[in-house]
This record gives sequence, structure tokens and C-alpha cells, in this order.
Amino acid sequence: MNAVAADARPGPTTEQLVDAVVAARAEVARSGPLVQCLTNSVVTPITANALLAVGASPAMVDNPQEAAQFAAIASGVLVNVGTLDTEKARAMDLAAASAQQHGTPWVLDPVAVGTLEFRTTVARDLLAHRPAVVRANASEVLGLTGAGAGGRGTDATSTVEQAVEAARALSLRTGGAVAVSGEVDVVVAGDRIVRVSGGTPLLTRTTGAGCALGALVAAYCAVTADPFVAAVAAHAHVAVAGERAADLAAGPGSFATAWIDALDAVGADVLASDLRSHARLS
Amino acid sequence: MNAVAADARPGPTTEQLVDAVVAARAEVARSGPLVQCLTNSVVTPITANALLAVGASPAMVDNPQEAAQFAAIASGVLVNVGTLDTEKARAMDLAAASAQQHGTPWVLDPVAVGTLEFRTTVARDLLAHRPAVVRANASEVLGLTGAGAGGRGTDATSTVEQAVEAARALSLRTGGAVAVSGEVDVVVAGDRIVRVSGGTPLLTRTTGAGCALGALVAAYCAVTADPFVAAVAAHAHVAVAGERAADLAAGPGSFATAWIDALDAVGADVLASDLRSHARLS
Amino acid sequence: MNAVAADARPGPTTEQLVDAVVAARAEVARSGPLVQCLTNSVVTPITANALLAVGASPAMVDNPQEAAQFAAIASGVLVNVGTLDTEKARAMDLAAASAQQHGTPWVLDPVAVGTLEFRTTVARDLLAHRPAVVRANASEVLGLTGAGAGGRGTDATSTVEQAVEAARALSLRTGGAVAVSGEVDVVVAGDRIVRVSGGTPLLTRTTGAGCALGALVAAYCAVTADPFVAAVAAHAHVAVAGERAADLAAGPGSFATAWIDALDAVGADVLASDLRSHARLS
Repeated sequence: MNAVAADARPGPTTEQLVDAVVAARAEVARSGPLVQCLTNSVVTPITANALLAVGASPAMVDNPQEAAQFAAIASGVLVNVGTLDTEKARAMDLAAASAQQHGTPWVLDPVAVGTLEFRTTVARDLLAHRPAVVRANASEVLGLTGAGAGGRGTDATSTVEQAVEAARALSLRTGGAVAVSGEVDVVVAGDRIVRVSGGTPLLTRTTGAGCALGALVAAYCAVTADPFVAAVAAHAHVAVAGERAADLAAGPGSFATAWIDALDAVGADVLASDLRSHARLS
Repeated sequence: MNAVAADARPGPTTEQLVDAVVAARAEVARSGPLVQCLTNSVVTPITANALLAVGASPAMVDNPQEAAQFAAIASGVLVNVGTLDTEKARAMDLAAASAQQHGTPWVLDPVAVGTLEFRTTVARDLLAHRPAVVRANASEVLGLTGAGAGGRGTDATSTVEQAVEAARALSLRTGGAVAVSGEVDVVVAGDRIVRVSGGTPLLTRTTGAGCALGALVAAYCAVTADPFVAAVAAHAHVAVAGERAADLAAGPGSFATAWIDALDAVGADVLASDLRSHARLS
Repeated sequence: MNAVAADARPGPTTEQLVDAVVAARAEVARSGPLVQCLTNSVVTPITANALLAVGASPAMVDNPQEAAQFAAIASGVLVNVGTLDTEKARAMDLAAASAQQHGTPWVLDPVAVGTLEFRTTVARDLLAHRPAVVRANASEVLGLTGAGAGGRGTDATSTVEQAVEAARALSLRTGGAVAVSGEVDVVVAGDRIVRVSGGTPLLTRTTGAGCALGALVAAYCAVTADPFVAAVAAHAHVAVAGERAADLAAGPGSFATAWIDALDAVGADVLASDLRSHARLS
């Protein structure tokens, strides 16, 4: 079992983090958090199915008439700017404001921010409502914080390590955690930092796997007061399930199906066993 | 073979109902009804695929410019308020009005009605156009009729039996049938009532399976003049296919795939054999 | 190996065409074209997954604020009018205009045009921006060119051969190619004509397979200057993958999954071997 990285002051030991992650996995299954998703039109099915697979309850309430009302009663909220229009942008602002007001943790996924002006403005404005977690690839973190020019569509053109300092600064500004997805994911919250390794390249060849991960972060935020733990737990869960699915898949189509099966199969026991026998978190 | 429930006056015997259901299944496959869907953004793929699997032809025409024109030529129409916006709500009113005017049977699925004000108002207003079938869970039936406060997002918090009286009253008001989905489904039309048992919990862990069922009810409405028979047929078809798929599935992801295969495989012969050897309808 | 059809003057021989198709397949995998999709809400997941499976990178940027900006940097653009609203129609016009201005090849898929007035007007207006390829079924080609009354929803009611002359005339007007999908597909560009045979009826029972084909045409347009070759390549790729998937499928649900796997598996080598041993192109 690795110790946490040297710059992780004064965070928990990896063993304590594993315990917290496993406890959160059990609590998602037990309590079935109600996760409101305002997300892009490409990924709603896989997002809802991923939430159902882990035991959460999805609700895609994303219009200005209902978004604030629902964010007040939801267990967690996801805001993903992948396919914006003006009405959805308004609903996102209302949902994030309501979530902040009612203490509902919410997650921001700034898809392709930095590349396109409209969504970049919308996403930056949303930061005022202090997301518990920002989940993004490296280019999006740099685009969101103004430190880079963004990626190529939804693809990152920067490496995760290039975005770590921007992620840390962003976490200090929001008071939450920032998760940077890549070959190895990095989760940062102020002085705490953990790398989550594993997963499979097939996750990047399945549309919506990353967006569904954002929704799972919101589900985990609903069951732990620490957004850092929530983000690590969701990323570890997805990585372990991804590896299991990759072993069964004949290609990217059968992978997507097997991944939903695996998200269900990776309960607290399976996750504990994996995390206690691998140096997945470091 | 069970007799129909004691309160089913003066409806057909179960044997006659089974015959009507099997005939409707054959007719869907033979005629390929054109089913217009105005439905939520999460479930369009599984809804279209379920319609194609049973031999129907889906058409997701849901804008105010085209909705009424298409409802006049469609074989059946589904209106599902799962993800409303003002434009879609307008299209739904136009489609339902046109369907009523042109004698096209239409089905209302009042997703999460009772919980959220905007959609509750929209769904209640749609009742004026007299849906052939309302398909919903217990909380939604109670929310739609003003008899309850609604569920938890899209989940029911009331039992099916608690909603039976409200469903009967609603069927008298619309002149059609009302189907209440649950562990055992109940279909009511005035004095007629039938319970459909079977299926699998995996149907509730697949996003859009219930919404697709609403579309299948619309397909069945297109091939029988009796909405009660149409609703029973669609629910029986889905339950039988669900059981077959559950036998093959390794989890909720592979279940969704196997369920589409099974909707196709459950033709009139398979359905007849199942219904004549089980007490699925009672 | 068949010679090209007698009316194919002065086009390449089938052998040269096969070489060009195989080279294009390799180039899609090598360069990973960025394909912007403005498409209907039913098919976004399968479209994105099909693009990822062949090695392209999908980006569903379809709002008026971002559509033109993105079309200037995309490798190819797909415009599919399957589920229009006024905002999306505006975004499509902006994207097509920007694509034309910046030399980005774009593909028009006129779903259900000819049947419904609103989309027919929108699609006809889009022709002014000269799509590199129009991909449609026979009824849609006739509906788009004003030569027919359209189909039944998304289903063709005319045969491919009935639409060949209209397709040729349309290709002369746009300066690009027109692909007419059917049991045997026909691709026309002025005096050049090729028929692509094979595939499987299961492709028509999978929602979005045809729409995803439109996106693949856009991916192929990004890697060859000849829209005729691009259209033939995408149709051949889809047909070969469809046959492989049909061999593995237990029904339309498992077919859809296997088809995505097969789009990935059909690389340049597999495609070359298939095209050189069958008379698929004629």
C-alpha cells in the first residue's frame, strides 16, 4: 500500500482514504441518492444507466421552470455544459444557485470549455455557485481557469500533470475538489492530492463514459461530506469497473454494455478488495 | 387459467382477453403501426428501438411546427412529459389536440407528475384531449388526479393498490384505460380491471424501459379499438420479454440489450404459449 | 471484379475505386477527423459511438452560439434534420454557411423530408450551402428535389432505382455526391454511379444506424477530396460491418452492440480483403 504523495498535507493516509471510499460505495448502494442531471443530449442514456447501475436514482430535470425546485430536494446535482442552449444555460444557473442555497452538493463538468466562447462564459459564471467538484480533462481545467486555450473538441491536448497547478488553484477558489481525468486521474483539493490509476482506453472510446463519471461524482458527493473523497471514490469505481469490462469486451460496443454491468457488480466488497491489493491510489 | 377479478363487470373472461392480446401482437407485427413519440430526451433511443423490435415504426416528431400535422397521419401517438420545455409542451398540446380531432389514439405518460408544478399543470391540461391510455406509476397517477403529492423523482412512493381507485376514476373521466405500473401492473377501464404479473426488477434498473412501454401501448392502441386490451397486451409483452432477458443478462447493461432482442422474439406464438400456460393475467 | 457500370463515365475502374476506399479507411484511423454533428435527438449516442469506433472524434455542437465557430475548425460536418426546432434550424444554417466559407466538407441527411413542410423548407434552403454529400433514402431524395411526396415517417416508400435520376440531378446542382440508401445503396456524382450491395436488414431495425452512416460519410469526406469516394467508402464500411454483426447477433438489440464492435474491427485490411473478394461495388 503506497503512502499518499509527499505534497498531500495534512490529508489522510491512503489506508484511511481507501476506508472512506469503500464506506461511500456502500452508502450509495444503501441510500440510493437522487441525482439531478442537467447534461448534454448525447449522454443522457448512459448517464442514467450508470447511476441506476451503482444504485442511485437519476432525474434529468433541466428546464428553467423546474431546475431550481428540484435542486432543492435532490441529493446531488450534475451540471454538464456539453450541448448548451440559452434555455439550458438559464436552467443550469438556476439549479446551481438553488443547490448552493439549499446545501445540495453539485458537480461541474465543463465539456470543451476553452475551445468555444459561449460555453466558456457560461461555465466560468457557474463557478460563483461553488461546485463541490469540478470534473474535467486537462484542457478543460486550463480553459476554465483561463490558463490555456482549450482542447480539440472534447479531447484534451494538454497532459494531466500540466493542469495540476491550475486544478489546485481552482479548488482553493471553489472550496471543493477538482478531478482531472486522463490516463492517470488526479484529484486535488487544496493541499491534498491523489492519483487514481487503472481504467482502460476503451472508456475514452465510449461516448458519455466521462460524462457519466461526472454524475457518479455527484452521487458520491451525496453520501460523504468530503468532496475530495467523493471524487476519488467515483474515479476508483469507474476505473475498476472499466478494467473488468475491458476483459469481457470484443470492442467498444460490447465494452459499453459490460461497463454498466460492472458498475453494478463493483460493490463495496469488490472495491475494497481491489483497492487493498493494488496501489491504485497514490 | 384464472377467472377475471370479481370486480371486472362485464368484461371478457381471461381466455377472451388472452385471445385479444395475442391477436393484437400479431397485428402489430403485420401492420407495422407508425408511432409518433413526443418523449423525454433520455429515452428516445430505447423507445425507438423497442418500437422497431416489435415491428412498429417510430417517428420522434416533437416540435410545434410539425407535431399536429404528423399526429393526423400517425397510427398512434405517445406524449411523455419526462423532460419538458415550453416549446415541447406546446408541441404536445398540438399533437394531442390533433390526435383527438383525427381519431388517432394517444397515450399519456405523466413522468414525475405530482412532484413538479410545471409538468403537473401541463399533464393535467393534456387530459382534456382524452388519452386512450394513461400509463404511469402509482405516485404519478395520484399526482395527476390530485389525490397524492407525487413520488421521489421518477420513483413511486405509493403502491399500485393505493392508486387503483384513482386510476378507475381517471379512466371514467378520459373514457379510456389507465395502466399503473409496479411489481404487479394493474390496468383499469371503468369496471374492468386486470392485473399483469411477472417481469423483472431489472426493468426498473434500465433507463427508459417504462417509457418505452408507454410507446408500445401506443403501438397496440393502433391495432385494436379497445384501449384496455392494448394496455394489457403491451404490459404482458414487456413482462414476458423482461423475464426472457433477465435469464440471459449478466447485469443491467446486458439486460437492456437482451430485452430489445426479446421484444422481437416474443411474437404472437410465444406470447400465446406464455399466457395460456401461466396465470399472468388475473 | 466487376467493371463499373456502363454509365460511369469517365470515373475510375472499380479496382481504382477500391484502392481509394481502402486508403480512405486507413486515413480515418490515422488522422482521427473531428466531426461536428448537428443531428436529431434520437441518434446522438449511436452516432458518437460509431464515429469513435472508426477512429474519428465526434463533437455535437449544435447551438446557434457555437455552430459556426466550430464548423470553421471541424474536419467535417453532419447536418441531420430528424428532430428540428427553430433554434436548431438556425444553428444548421450557420454551420453549413461557415463550413462552405471555410472549405469544411459537410453532409446533409434530410430525414423525413417531403413528408413534413417545416423540415422540407429547411432542408431545401440548406442546399444553397452546397453539401459535399447528401445521404438519404429514396423517398427523401425525391422529397428534397420536389420530385416526390416523401415517405412514411422515416421509411422510404419509393425504391432506390426510382430515385437515381433525381439523385443525379441533385449532385449536378450541389457539385457533390448523392447517396441513396436501400437494400442496395446507390452513390451518384454527375456521370459517376456505383452500387454498394450487402449489409443486413438489421441495420434498418436499429434506430440511428442510417443517421450514423451520415456521420461516417462526413468523417470520410474529411480525408479525401472526392465526396464520391467518401460516400462509397462509408457505405461499404457500414455494409461490411453490418454483415459481421448480423452473424453474431441474437436480435436487434445485440446487433446494435455488435455493429459498433464491427465498425472498429473493419479496418483498412479487413475492408480491402472484403472488397477484393466480393463484387460489393458494381
